[in-house]
Amino acid sequence: MYLDYASATPVRKEALKVMLPYFSKSFGNPSSIHKMGIEAKWAIEDARRHVAELVGARPDSVVFTSGATESINLALFGALKAHRGTGRHVVVSAVEHKATLEALKNEGFEVSIVPVDRGGLVKVEDVMAVVRPDTVVVSIMAVNNEVGTVNPINEIGREILRLKKPRPGLPPPKTPLFHVDAAQAVQYLDLFVERNHIDLLSFGSAKIGGPKGVGALVISPNARIEPMLFGGNQEHGLRAGTENVPGIVGFGKASELVLAEREKEAKRLGGLRRMFIRELHREIPGAIVNGDPKLVAPHIVNVQIPGKDSEEIVLRLDAKDIFISSASACTNPSARSHVLRAMGYSEDEIRSSVRISFGHGTKRTDVFGLITALTEVSR
Amino acid sequence: MYLDYASATPVRKEALKVMLPYFSKSFGNPSSIHKMGIEAKWAIEDARRHVAELVGARPDSVVFTSGATESINLALFGALKAHRGTGRHVVVSAVEHKATLEALKNEGFEVSIVPVDRGGLVKVEDVMAVVRPDTVVVSIMAVNNEVGTVNPINEIGREILRLKKPRPGLPPPKTPLFHVDAAQAVQYLDLFVERNHIDLLSFGSAKIGGPKGVGALVISPNARIEPMLFGGNQEHGLRAGTENVPGIVGFGKASELVLAEREKEAKRLGGLRRMFIRELHREIPGAIVNGDPKLVAPHIVNVQIPGKDSEEIVLRLDAKDIFISSASACTNPSARSHVLRAMGYSEDEIRSSVRISFGHGTKRTDVFGLITALTEVSR
Repeated sequence: MYLDYASATPVRKEALKVMLPYFSKSFGNPSSIHKMGIEAKWAIEDARRHVAELVGARPDSVVFTSGATESINLALFGALKAHRGTGRHVVVSAVEHKATLEALKNEGFEVSIVPVDRGGLVKVEDVMAVVRPDTVVVSIMAVNNEVGTVNPINEIGREILRLKKPRPGLPPPKTPLFHVDAAQAVQYLDLFVERNHIDLLSFGSAKIGGPKGVGALVISPNARIEPMLFGGNQEHGLRAGTENVPGIVGFGKASELVLAEREKEAKRLGGLRRMFIRELHREIPGAIVNGDPKLVAPHIVNVQIPGKDSEEIVLRLDAKDIFISSASACTNPSARSHVLRAMGYSEDEIRSSVRISFGHGTKRTDVFGLITALTEVSR
Repeated sequence: MYLDYASATPVRKEALKVMLPYFSKSFGNPSSIHKMGIEAKWAIEDARRHVAELVGARPDSVVFTSGATESINLALFGALKAHRGTGRHVVVSAVEHKATLEALKNEGFEVSIVPVDRGGLVKVEDVMAVVRPDTVVVSIMAVNNEVGTVNPINEIGREILRLKKPRPGLPPPKTPLFHVDAAQAVQYLDLFVERNHIDLLSFGSAKIGGPKGVGALVISPNARIEPMLFGGNQEHGLRAGTENVPGIVGFGKASELVLAEREKEAKRLGGLRRMFIRELHREIPGAIVNGDPKLVAPHIVNVQIPGKDSEEIVLRLDAKDIFISSASACTNPSARSHVLRAMGYSEDEIRSSVRISFGHGTKRTDVFGLITALTEVSR
């Protein structure tokens, strides 16, 4: 019983099926000028169209990378490199993925960290309060990957856009690029780039039913970034290296499936989530649901069982072949969640919190099975 | 008839077979602490052992990346970052992969370029002549990817090592790291890192019968580099991002197969190569084989057919379903080879040169078929 979709998703069988020919049959290098190369190139461009459609972007604004982490790194460092003449200030929320926070800290950029409330929510006014004329990027996560809280991306995008309005008598303002980490968002939310005023959007294939080792950075036509990897003109010169053709093809198919099913799946999982919470409160009266009670993605639920240790819960459920997470799988298992800490949780509260995440294969019976098992281990 | 193995190789069926369970069944995130995560983690460590064995390294010296291009970038930038206090000088040969040359140029490092002779060969003394006390990395390609010339890696490694000998009365010398781009070498040559005194060795899965989107940087225990991608403790903190588990598993299996078959395959392809050259000279008397006549890898042969245009040759063979290359597939097809130019070839000579490359599936009949077709298009 796999209830850890926010850590990794199985590759959808439709996606695996379309990938297979590109391993050993249509295996050409997309840069080759012969038929085998052209066939590979076409496969990539077809996938690019599907990935772009998922976020309402133009195909040529999609840059394929090796995953969400590389996309985030490329968005931030690429923007900072391209604008090194104008500033080195970045605004990020306190709950961004470690990729965001660590990358900037390590490279010595000037970082303003926007606090979140106890629900994990970033407030528009808190973001805008720290934006300065020399801010190069504002980076905000669309869906908090540990508690599922949904941030006001559209509103932040609109406020940043407003800074760009020319004013009579003043030089045209330099405004920051708006980067959104959508790794846990594109599955169930509409994050169309234009209508949300997003300049840079990053997400990965592995969390949406595609294969690991592929991701995308979507770059709006007016945003300028520089590459991090050199050695070829692939991806409009923004990401060198032979393209991972089968991976990209699988990512394309997964994107197509997500877009087709998104609304229905979001509704279905939202229903399972509400059912889970209802049952949880009935069966384990002391349990607390972390995160914002309303602004939340349908697939993530973070639960605190006071007095219990999260790792123990995870391992005891593991023994019953039920798989959930004690914290974001991306962080060192021994280091407790920086996300819950930023939300103001005490070490005790953090220690007793687990993350459950639903996905394509999750059924009602899984939820009931989980409740039964959780009740047992909470005794 | 695929004769472009230096551009891309089909995934070996044994490799694809072991990869398959990791897409949709054992799809856990290796950072997860539950069974699914541990299973994925084990698969990676098993693959790491095989990749390490291919180059005689310790498993924990292997860092998995998204491919050879990322490995080269990580080796160079990672070393330059880790040693920024001691120098910013790099020594490279004139025929390195574009990844090497462009990366350094773009980032404004001080670069000494070692010339090659008309065979494409780098001379040990030319390398050592430009090494300085503040040289951070010496980067030399083991096998020239366009003409197949094999460079004296062992001798260069030995000379660099000699600089490290402490001398009485003098402070311990700072010596450069020795990086070897082995993308076209590990398939058919023994490039064991220790016995060749190599500090950093990079290669990719896609050129050795493994899947695209995976590579390795092998880092000797005494070499120090810094990461380029942040956001997780994967790969000993040297390469963040969820690991491409199926890709790594396939890379491991391909490495295992290469090591088991290397000697036999090198002999077999060397024989095919000699046969090809003999037939070529018989059938197309004007044809010239580029590169070093003796120090050459068994799988690459670069041929000049004076008066003919390489792209035309490639496309006319393509029409017969014979796939070869007009230049390294990694470079822009419209930009002619920087490698042949560095070897002192005229634009006319470059324009009439094609690369043929053999591999696992190449048979005697392919060679004869190629000769027949080449003879036709050369008329």
